[in-house]
Amino acid sequence: MFAQVQAAYERLKDVAHRTPIHTSRTLNEQVGAEVFLKCENFQRIGAFKFRGAYNAISQLSEAERARGVITYSSGNHAQATALVCQLFDIQAHIVMPDNAPATKRAATEGYGAHIIAYNPATGDRKQIAEELVAQHGYTIIPPYDHLAVVAGQGTAALELLQDVEKLDMLLVPCGGGGLLSGSAIAVKGMYPACQVIGIEPELADDATRSFRTGVLHTVTNPPTIADGTRTPFLGDLTFPLVREYVDDMQTVSEQAIIDAVKFLFYRTKLVIEPSGALGVAALLSGAVQASGRVGVILSGGNIDAATMTHILGS
Amino acid sequence: MFAQVQAAYERLKDVAHRTPIHTSRTLNEQVGAEVFLKCENFQRIGAFKFRGAYNAISQLSEAERARGVITYSSGNHAQATALVCQLFDIQAHIVMPDNAPATKRAATEGYGAHIIAYNPATGDRKQIAEELVAQHGYTIIPPYDHLAVVAGQGTAALELLQDVEKLDMLLVPCGGGGLLSGSAIAVKGMYPACQVIGIEPELADDATRSFRTGVLHTVTNPPTIADGTRTPFLGDLTFPLVREYVDDMQTVSEQAIIDAVKFLFYRTKLVIEPSGALGVAALLSGAVQASGRVGVILSGGNIDAATMTHILGS
Repeated sequence: MFAQVQAAYERLKDVAHRTPIHTSRTLNEQVGAEVFLKCENFQRIGAFKFRGAYNAISQLSEAERARGVITYSSGNHAQATALVCQLFDIQAHIVMPDNAPATKRAATEGYGAHIIAYNPATGDRKQIAEELVAQHGYTIIPPYDHLAVVAGQGTAALELLQDVEKLDMLLVPCGGGGLLSGSAIAVKGMYPACQVIGIEPELADDATRSFRTGVLHTVTNPPTIADGTRTPFLGDLTFPLVREYVDDMQTVSEQAIIDAVKFLFYRTKLVIEPSGALGVAALLSGAVQASGRVGVILSGGNIDAATMTHILGS
Repeated sequence: MFAQVQAAYERLKDVAHRTPIHTSRTLNEQVGAEVFLKCENFQRIGAFKFRGAYNAISQLSEAERARGVITYSSGNHAQATALVCQLFDIQAHIVMPDNAPATKRAATEGYGAHIIAYNPATGDRKQIAEELVAQHGYTIIPPYDHLAVVAGQGTAALELLQDVEKLDMLLVPCGGGGLLSGSAIAVKGMYPACQVIGIEPELADDATRSFRTGVLHTVTNPPTIADGTRTPFLGDLTFPLVREYVDDMQTVSEQAIIDAVKFLFYRTKLVIEPSGALGVAALLSGAVQASGRVGVILSGGNIDAATMTHILGS
C-alpha cells in the first residue's frame, strides 16, 4: 500500500501545493510538546481532498474521461472533484443535497461541474449516483472508500515526514477514514515508530467505536460542528485499513473543537474549519497526552461566515 | 539609510520569523498580475511591529535597559514592545487608553508589561510618556517616528525582495509611515525600478494629502475599520522619508477594505486585520492598476471577534 502513496506523491508533486508546516511557541508551551502543523487549508480548494481526487481522476483512461465522472458530496470532495475534472477537461457530475449551502453549490458550479440536487430526506446519494452510472457510463470517484483516493490523501503525511524528521506522533482527523488510513499507511511506510492517532468528535464517534470493537458502528446525522466528519461510517476499504495501520483513536468535545478553531484563528492566524482543527482540539483539551515531536494535519480551511461567527462568539 | 535596514536585518534574522510569501491563483486572475503576499500576520505578536521594536530595543545600552522602556500604543506596537522587553528582561511601561479592548490590555500584560491607563478624552499619550521619562529615565520607543523603528520595519520588504526577484510594484499600508518609509528605503536600496505605493483608507487619508502637497495634513480619530491607520499624522521623521522614497499613495474605501479581509479569509485562508489588507483592497477595488509582478505587505493579523464578525456579515 505504501508504494501507492509514493506513486500518488509523484503524480501530485507538480500539481498540488506542497503545503507549509507552521509552528507556534504558544501551542508548544500549552501542550508541552513540539507541534508541527501541516497546513492543508492552503491546499488547492482549501482542503486535502484535492489530493485524493487528483490521484484517482488522473489515472482514468481516455474512454473513461470522455464519459465523465460522478461523485456525491456537499463538501470539500465535491469542489476537489470539480476542480480536478476542470483541469483534465472532464465533465463532472455532483450529487448534492438540495439543502446544501448556496455558496458550496456555487463554488462547485464555478469549476464547471453539473449539480444533481436530491432531497436527503427521501433519496440516497450513493444510489442516485449508481443509477446515473448505469445509465451514462460515468466513473464514480467516491469521497473516501477508494484505493486511489486513500493513497492520494496519504501524500500530506508523506510530505510532512519528508520535512520533519522523527515524529513521535501524528494526529489526523477522521470522517470516512480516507485521510486517516492514507496518513497511517504513509507513516508506517516511512517511520513506523511514529504513532498515528485518529481524532473524531464525541458526537460522531462511529470510527472510534468501530476501531475499538472491530465491528462497524454507525452514526446518523451527528449534530457536530465538524461537518467533515458527519459521514455515517467507515468504508468497506477504509475500515480494515484503519484497523490495520492506525495505532489509536480519540474523541473530542464540541467545546474543544470550538476552542481549537479559535486558538488557530487568534494565535496562529490560520483559517481552519472545525473538522480541520480536531488534532489541535485533542492536544489543547488533553484528550491526547502529547510529548516529544507531534505532527498535526490541519485538514482544511473551508468555513462559512455563520460557523465562524458562532465560534468567535462562543 | 539602506545600510540601517541591512543592519536591522542582521539583528533580526535569528529572532524574527522569516515570514512566508503566499500566492493565490484567484487573486492573480482577478487583478491581472502576479501577486506576492508577504505574510506579516505570521510574524511574532501577529504583526510587523515586532521588527521595529526589536531593532530599536536591542540597541539600548545596559544602563538604558536597567532604567526601562516606555511607549504609547493600544495596538500591535504595545505588544511588540512588551514582548521584546520580555526577551531582554527589561521592564516595559505602556501608556494605553483606558477604553482599550480588554483583550489587547491582557495580551500586553501577558508579556510582563506595566500598563499606564489614561483617559484619551482629557490626556495626551505622548505627553504622559514624556513626563514619566523625565521622572524615571525610561527610554521612549515610539510607534513609528524613530530611525531604528523605521529601519526594522523595512526588513519585511528586504526579505520579500530577497525571495522574489524583480518586483514591478510594492503595496504597503500606511498609518504613521514607519512601515511604508522603511519598506521604500529597502526597495530603493535593492531594486529601485520597483514602484512603492502607500495605501491608506479614504477616511484616514492624511498621509496621502501630506505626500501630494508637501504640507503635513492631520486626521483626528478617523472612523475607519483599519485601526492600525488611525494615527493622526506622519511623523517628523517619517514625513520627509515618505516624500523622498515613496513613489505614490492611493486610498481605498471602507467597503474595499472589508472585501479584502473577506477575500483573504475565504480564498487564501489567512487571518488578516483590516489595516493589513489595504494592499489587497487597492488591487481588488482597482484603486491601484497592477500589472507584472506585485508585492503586497500583509502587515498583520490581530483582529478581534467583533470586527471579524462584522466583516464576515457585511
